[in-house]
Amino acid sequence: MAALGEDEVKERLSGLDGWEQKGDAIEKQFQFEDFSGSVDFVNTITPVANEMDHHPDLAISWNTVTVTLSTHSEGGLTENDFELAQKIDGLG
Amino acid sequence: MAALGEDEVKERLSGLDGWEQKGDAIEKQFQFEDFSGSVDFVNTITPVANEMDHHPDLAISWNTVTVTLSTHSEGGLTENDFELAQKIDGLG
Repeated sequence: MAALGEDEVKERLSGLDGWEQKGDAIEKQFQFEDFSGSVDFVNTITPVANEMDHHPDLAISWNTVTVTLSTHSEGGLTENDFELAQKIDGLG
Repeated sequence: MAALGEDEVKERLSGLDGWEQKGDAIEKQFQFEDFSGSVDFVNTITPVANEMDHHPDLAISWNTVTVTLSTHSEGGLTENDFELAQKIDGLG
């Protein structure tokens, strides 16, 4: 799965809600009631990420989870990142 | 619970294994088998943090969890941070 070009990235980003490009990655913040809400969200991501064998970076800060997606092996963003972003949006 | 002075922080840090001071926080990285191992670790931290009503920042990147502790309300490190660090070390 090859890294997408800049135009392809822009097009796919426009189809997503709330995701921003940060260098070679896309990022979104999700907010919850409290710390436990954040951890619950991380637990719902885990089986989805394992099934795709593609894993986000996750930063938990109290009631906020920042999800960062990139395909390090390709040095950029691939279809996998946008597919996982869409699946995560379906959970949040 | 007041913020500790620099000497008190150094003394308490010397009693811990693998924690480093980063500005107003202390930080340690924990490594696991894979992403699920990292998430399992986060799940063991949650009840401990909730019981203390003191919550770490947690960054998951595949098999690595970076734990960052600080007491934002005091603008620095307090006894709570070192108590939570010790409890987390007991889990890892």
